[in-house]
Amino acid sequence: MAIQQKLSLMIPGPTPVPEKVLEALGRHPIGHRSKDFQDLVEITTKNLKWLHQTENDVLTITGSGTSAMEAGIISTLSKGDKVICGENGKFGQRWVKVAEEFGLEIIKIDAEWGTPLDPESFRAVLEKDYKKEIKAVILTHSETSTGVINDLKTISSHIRNHKKALSIIDCVTSIGACNVPVDEWELDIVASGSQKGYMIPPGLSFVSMSKKAWKASEDSNLPKFYLNLKSYKKSLSNNSNPYTPAVNLVFALDEALKMMQDEGLDSIFKRHEKHKLAVSAAAKTLNLKLFADEKHLSPSVTAIKIEDIDAEKFRKTIKNKYDILLAGGQDHLKGKIFRIGHLGYVNDRDIISVIAAIGNTLVEQDKVSTEQVGEALKIALFHLKVS
Amino acid sequence: MAIQQKLSLMIPGPTPVPEKVLEALGRHPIGHRSKDFQDLVEITTKNLKWLHQTENDVLTITGSGTSAMEAGIISTLSKGDKVICGENGKFGQRWVKVAEEFGLEIIKIDAEWGTPLDPESFRAVLEKDYKKEIKAVILTHSETSTGVINDLKTISSHIRNHKKALSIIDCVTSIGACNVPVDEWELDIVASGSQKGYMIPPGLSFVSMSKKAWKASEDSNLPKFYLNLKSYKKSLSNNSNPYTPAVNLVFALDEALKMMQDEGLDSIFKRHEKHKLAVSAAAKTLNLKLFADEKHLSPSVTAIKIEDIDAEKFRKTIKNKYDILLAGGQDHLKGKIFRIGHLGYVNDRDIISVIAAIGNTLVEQDKVSTEQVGEALKIALFHLKVS
Repeated sequence: MAIQQKLSLMIPGPTPVPEKVLEALGRHPIGHRSKDFQDLVEITTKNLKWLHQTENDVLTITGSGTSAMEAGIISTLSKGDKVICGENGKFGQRWVKVAEEFGLEIIKIDAEWGTPLDPESFRAVLEKDYKKEIKAVILTHSETSTGVINDLKTISSHIRNHKKALSIIDCVTSIGACNVPVDEWELDIVASGSQKGYMIPPGLSFVSMSKKAWKASEDSNLPKFYLNLKSYKKSLSNNSNPYTPAVNLVFALDEALKMMQDEGLDSIFKRHEKHKLAVSAAAKTLNLKLFADEKHLSPSVTAIKIEDIDAEKFRKTIKNKYDILLAGGQDHLKGKIFRIGHLGYVNDRDIISVIAAIGNTLVEQDKVSTEQVGEALKIALFHLKVS
Repeated sequence: MAIQQKLSLMIPGPTPVPEKVLEALGRHPIGHRSKDFQDLVEITTKNLKWLHQTENDVLTITGSGTSAMEAGIISTLSKGDKVICGENGKFGQRWVKVAEEFGLEIIKIDAEWGTPLDPESFRAVLEKDYKKEIKAVILTHSETSTGVINDLKTISSHIRNHKKALSIIDCVTSIGACNVPVDEWELDIVASGSQKGYMIPPGLSFVSMSKKAWKASEDSNLPKFYLNLKSYKKSLSNNSNPYTPAVNLVFALDEALKMMQDEGLDSIFKRHEKHKLAVSAAAKTLNLKLFADEKHLSPSVTAIKIEDIDAEKFRKTIKNKYDILLAGGQDHLKGKIFRIGHLGYVNDRDIISVIAAIGNTLVEQDKVSTEQVGEALKIALFHLKVS
């Protein structure tokens, strides 16, 4: 029987939270208009910029990652604006819905779920836009629903060449997991959420805004209030917020960003990379199929397709027996895949635990031999040693 | 010298948080799509309905009170809709701005800041609307910026008589502080925020929606995504959320609502009433002027007008010397008033402490005598005894 309160969160968010961050979260709140809180906004903003590798403004919103993406879209665009939406998973699909809701004209570039978006398609459409009518390119970097990472580096270079279009990027499960050099790639709008690489509970989201994005915001005519980023920019000049922020989550953010700085960006990215490789190699050794194209695996989440077994039942067994929470498939993938999150505050032990748990469960179901489980752990160990 | 971390929050939000609630907040998060979390949504929703004295849906949003008010407005109204906005303070003013941003046609009913809205003005305008063109009446119950409570009971009776118009009410500092019987007064949309009477840190907000409000939502054409309440209703039927909620704040909400149930609604309301009376009576004894009309004092916050003294300096002295945080005036009232919050997790000791601190500071500035401070405490004690 699993022990409640000793749950291991191997899902792509909420991710595990360090004790130090939980302690910060559980402090008595302070006034959000006080000098003490202004000091906190100043330091967290500075450290958010470090994490984003940018000199751009990085704004903190109380809301989910979806609220941050919506804020980026509605703060810079106008009704009828032509945009490209990349769609190869549930989140790409969601940004299409947002674009539709606000009356944007959508050119969709899609790919089958589990495969990456083709950068060439973006190049082709952008190059053909002689009149420079395309106002933005909206896409998801790491598609949490499928475990695919899109080639943002190449796609963003095509957006840059267009010169006019803004890049509006969902980096919810890539910021703090792999390299997203916002300034180097000249990303205009980058959205992310606290319950991911940030190692803090859900409730805060973040938007990085380039000068070009702010310029576009001057002409934006979509109605908005709570998610109008101009209000956040104005308040930030005074290290403040336009509306009462989730003060305690900002305490947590401050601690988590300090931990990230102690570890260093390179070490964080290498840790996620080796965990990704360990999990995918072990899965294959256990005869499990990767749902995502192996050349485009997300650093944060590995989606596994299991045949002959109901993925939901499998997840339940792992949860009940080992207190490890895996994520299920979303929408039409429910029951067909499960997803292993290896994002944020995850260490090598978490990785070998989840492999051992999955391996043992497959042994009990006569799907693999104990030798295979040993092999899976051995190959994981090989990847974990590289650091 | 004040001791950090022993701060007393006598502001109208964030309000003090009980240890039990902080402990819940600091727990390891769980998956927001898990059965355990669904159970939590079920119980907190049930208890939110208890707090609102309603059978209506009460939805939980990750965002500030402003996001909840905006959600109520944009989920039910359409561009060009005629609405009445009551405005007698900063929050009333904010809802006018939201209505303007979304292209509503506004009939403003206002009153000087510090005075209440006149229910007769609402009656007159609503009675004259033979064509039933007015779609909603938007107003603030307890005006946090001035310490005035509007007569919602009477105003809502006029809205009811109109039959067509929805009531959209900011109850951010009245829910959990004084009686707001949502069903009895037939309030359609009621918005509130976690960092107030709820005794939890900021980050969650709540919207109660009547059947009539849901019916109106079917015709609403304002663009919205994150704040579209229809998505929240759909998810709630499965005890879930459309977007990742602030899981740890929901842990805190659960604890806080249980504490509120243990205390009981009547006791909570009586506690706020006696604290309000104690503070206002003591203030007058100390020669301080109430900013708000004495017949319409908010149960949550008392605004004090001090002449010959800069209110900001006064607040700073109290903070530095006694570790008590008072709120300042907003906008044109900055420096002219200070506000004493007595909302949420506040006990009799907090009340006599703030009176003693204010009294002593006035003695040091030769504004009152030590006898007057003794008198102020005595009259406070008289009110505190009534329970």
